[in-house]
Amino acid sequence: MTKKLKSEMGWSSADRIVVRGYDLVEDLIGKFSLGDVAFLELKGRLPSQQESIVFNAITVTLVEHGMTPSAIAARLTYFGAPESLQGAVAAGLLGMGDRFGGSAEDAARMLQTALDNPPLPVGERVGERVEKEVLRLPADAAYSSADLKAVASSIVSDHKARKQPVAGLGHPIHKPVDPRTAKLFEVAAANGLSGRYVELMGLVGKEATRVFGRELPVNATGAIGAIASELGISWRVCRGLAVMARSIGLVAHIQEETEEPLAAEIWSRIEEESSSQNRPGTD
Amino acid sequence: MTKKLKSEMGWSSADRIVVRGYDLVEDLIGKFSLGDVAFLELKGRLPSQQESIVFNAITVTLVEHGMTPSAIAARLTYFGAPESLQGAVAAGLLGMGDRFGGSAEDAARMLQTALDNPPLPVGERVGERVEKEVLRLPADAAYSSADLKAVASSIVSDHKARKQPVAGLGHPIHKPVDPRTAKLFEVAAANGLSGRYVELMGLVGKEATRVFGRELPVNATGAIGAIASELGISWRVCRGLAVMARSIGLVAHIQEETEEPLAAEIWSRIEEESSSQNRPGTD
Amino acid sequence: MTKKLKSEMGWSSADRIVVRGYDLVEDLIGKFSLGDVAFLELKGRLPSQQESIVFNAITVTLVEHGMTPSAIAARLTYFGAPESLQGAVAAGLLGMGDRFGGSAEDAARMLQTALDNPPLPVGERVGERVEKEVLRLPADAAYSSADLKAVASSIVSDHKARKQPVAGLGHPIHKPVDPRTAKLFEVAAANGLSGRYVELMGLVGKEATRVFGRELPVNATGAIGAIASELGISWRVCRGLAVMARSIGLVAHIQEETEEPLAAEIWSRIEEESSSQNRPGTD
Amino acid sequence: MTKKLKSEMGWSSADRIVVRGYDLVEDLIGKFSLGDVAFLELKGRLPSQQESIVFNAITVTLVEHGMTPSAIAARLTYFGAPESLQGAVAAGLLGMGDRFGGSAEDAARMLQTALDNPPLPVGERVGERVEKEVLRLPADAAYSSADLKAVASSIVSDHKARKQPVAGLGHPIHKPVDPRTAKLFEVAAANGLSGRYVELMGLVGKEATRVFGRELPVNATGAIGAIASELGISWRVCRGLAVMARSIGLVAHIQEETEEPLAAEIWSRIEEESSSQNRPGTD
Repeated sequence: MTKKLKSEMGWSSADRIVVRGYDLVEDLIGKFSLGDVAFLELKGRLPSQQESIVFNAITVTLVEHGMTPSAIAARLTYFGAPESLQGAVAAGLLGMGDRFGGSAEDAARMLQTALDNPPLPVGERVGERVEKEVLRLPADAAYSSADLKAVASSIVSDHKARKQPVAGLGHPIHKPVDPRTAKLFEVAAANGLSGRYVELMGLVGKEATRVFGRELPVNATGAIGAIASELGISWRVCRGLAVMARSIGLVAHIQEETEEPLAAEIWSRIEEESSSQNRPGTD
Repeated sequence: MTKKLKSEMGWSSADRIVVRGYDLVEDLIGKFSLGDVAFLELKGRLPSQQESIVFNAITVTLVEHGMTPSAIAARLTYFGAPESLQGAVAAGLLGMGDRFGGSAEDAARMLQTALDNPPLPVGERVGERVEKEVLRLPADAAYSSADLKAVASSIVSDHKARKQPVAGLGHPIHKPVDPRTAKLFEVAAANGLSGRYVELMGLVGKEATRVFGRELPVNATGAIGAIASELGISWRVCRGLAVMARSIGLVAHIQEETEEPLAAEIWSRIEEESSSQNRPGTD
Repeated sequence: MTKKLKSEMGWSSADRIVVRGYDLVEDLIGKFSLGDVAFLELKGRLPSQQESIVFNAITVTLVEHGMTPSAIAARLTYFGAPESLQGAVAAGLLGMGDRFGGSAEDAARMLQTALDNPPLPVGERVGERVEKEVLRLPADAAYSSADLKAVASSIVSDHKARKQPVAGLGHPIHKPVDPRTAKLFEVAAANGLSGRYVELMGLVGKEATRVFGRELPVNATGAIGAIASELGISWRVCRGLAVMARSIGLVAHIQEETEEPLAAEIWSRIEEESSSQNRPGTD
Repeated sequence: MTKKLKSEMGWSSADRIVVRGYDLVEDLIGKFSLGDVAFLELKGRLPSQQESIVFNAITVTLVEHGMTPSAIAARLTYFGAPESLQGAVAAGLLGMGDRFGGSAEDAARMLQTALDNPPLPVGERVGERVEKEVLRLPADAAYSSADLKAVASSIVSDHKARKQPVAGLGHPIHKPVDPRTAKLFEVAAANGLSGRYVELMGLVGKEATRVFGRELPVNATGAIGAIASELGISWRVCRGLAVMARSIGLVAHIQEETEEPLAAEIWSRIEEESSSQNRPGTD
């Protein structure tokens, strides 16, 4: 009656530790870098040299972004619970949700949904969503033969109709262009990993700029979502790329907090100001 | 009255992201690997080639250890909250505490405390802890001139008196020897990073084996604590090495859980068995 | 340029602690129960006797449900990090997401959206969503005058069209009826808090049973979502009712884990079985 | 070979939910308050009226303390991950560690260790800890017959020798006296729950004031640790009292954050100031 529990992640015995089929001691330690083993964990195989450069590039991009809400939360948590560095990092990671980590996921989902199995024919979709089942291309055929301009147009008009922003475009601070995007696309292209997902992401940016009437270039998370798609990483774990990379940054923030503590000062200022309207003798 | 808030971790403007003084786009993306940027985050400078190999080796060791309590907790959490991959990873990381992540920290603390500023003279310490202030060597002198055998002997007798196990020795599963230890020490030595911390860790293992009368070889966390000390990483963040590495492994476990779910089956079995003695009609 | 930070939650000075405008020492300690202060925290005022009974009833319902995925995750986390009880509870709470805590939130959102501001007239909606703006009743008028049967019908047909399950109905284990529902509705009615949200929830259950052709009675989270709506608690924090209640249950599970540890046994069994297909000499 | 998994926390079947032996629907919902069910969860029995008042008093004390580091961390986390209220609460709880939640635990541990099984005779302890096993009174005898002044003196001199602060005494803000202490002790006494743990805590405060030469009155966590001990709650879960109570407060802070958001402003200010020394054109 019970289902057999199975996992292919790894196992160990008295004299061996096996990671995704590789012997940790014989095959990995001293031979492959942290980023390459991260690729192995997600893909079940080691990367080619090109894949290694590109995968490391997208994860490196996500390690550190200064004093983010995540970093501040981690520092405040460490102040209250210095016995538990893991708790401070966990608190910081919990903020890598829909607003931050989620945007690369949303972009990858948009691209993978569109290209792995796009509606066919695209032109007949509008207004018929409820009434009839839409035919779909098989995944391989779609990836190689879909009319990317039409797909981009469909994506953007869909978002406009639903009054939703398109994932992976624009940035509140890094404007007019996100400096990371061109570099990431350049690294992907130089390593033969700039395919139709990357092309589609660019077309979506151009089409959105036209339709919404303002500059909406591809941002870093759009580039990462597209390149992760080229690497065959499911959109379901794209947010995880930010999570794994940022955990590194958060450990480093905690290290700085042990040397140059900010938490008590932050607490004191915010506590004072936010309750001042209720304190007697203040106004 | 207020203290100025300062951080050297990174900052960004409209057209730049700066990480530890390096321009992310110009200097890091496509040029350095995830592990090397982790080193940069912790040390404030990029690693030499030797340091890179050794730092990547110790973090690679910590990525994946199969179906650990952390991995199971992450999968159960994802089952209840599939909207929040970051929450599942955070739940898993929260188990990287004193029992798991803490052991590398404890070993590094033991070594760094002993060598950075050892009591002087060691022989006169016993029984006098409360009565008089113990003189101490300056840190540099201690590292280079301490009598490592005497230091190891003092560490072990101290633990024996307090009836505490010595950090970084022995392993419940990987015995008689932890296969990771020899490899890690080999990689460190081959890259010129096997110094007096590594030597001391080995001596502590030998002395503990003698004093406690059973095999207590250096385990993987002892090796990692010693090598991290050689790399100048403070014991205060050594648990963070496990946290950052394991966050990668946990993302991969969640990916497998999306493809081959185990959580419902685990829940069902444990729930059934653990309450069976109270259910009517069961025994 | 900066926005003033303000909070009405509470503040303290050398000789006072103020909670939601009440002096903690003079007004609350020894006079009001934990549940009543929870009501105060959410509503900004203390409950009437009736409100107290009903609010305590819905939170009491959510405290403990045996060996859930949350409880197992908390115990596994405590095993790895016994220094951090708060981390184990946090790990357990992280599983109170869309699948568990989210269902009361979804039911409350459905009811509050429908009754606080229902489309008008309901009958003309179908097929016109994109083309024209739907008129809406003002909130008070809607709550008191909406045709609840028509609203229920609209809710169910909407979910059917989108192929989504209706929140708050049916239960995988507690069937044909969830024993908590009748009791919760009875307590609400006996205390004058069974109004049109409760009525609407019941009608939705009846209509769904008719339209989907199988028994779909209101479950505990549907009842809680409806009653929380009667108490004027926003759907945005209804998941929080489960979070606050379950945090109590998780502390108690950790207490039992300190006395009767299960984590090591759970780990050992799952680890063994899930990797057995890859171990040499096993099959 | 395997250990049987057993739990007494609760279980459910199709038509019943059982919590600590009580039928949730028949015995608890509508009859007992949240605080009383929390007592049941921890103690395995419902409280007397006196115990109910006292237990609710200590948990009510811990619900809300304004804009604490925990509350700020929760709000920052919610900003990044609005899909996961449970994640924001968890992030806040992670700061309830050694510095905050831990102090009630430390006080309770100090009192329970001293009274449940004190060294005998106390006067001969000094300087002999290592050399010989100290005889101990059986727990019941100790609780009723120990010389509390001598125990207090031993506790304080022990802390002084180890240069450690005594848990549960003094407060950085609430001075010269913590206003919560007198009220909590008054409520305990009025309900027949002011016994020898409370007496000992008071004596420890007096002795510490004398020995350390400055005012060190019992603070709220000292009072809570002592009263929790009177209620027979193990020090191992005293930190959990803060965790369960504060989870309520954190849900309420998130509710306020949905209505009056502070996170973006806090982030912006801290980010700006903390990196200003590195930005070109600023000083």
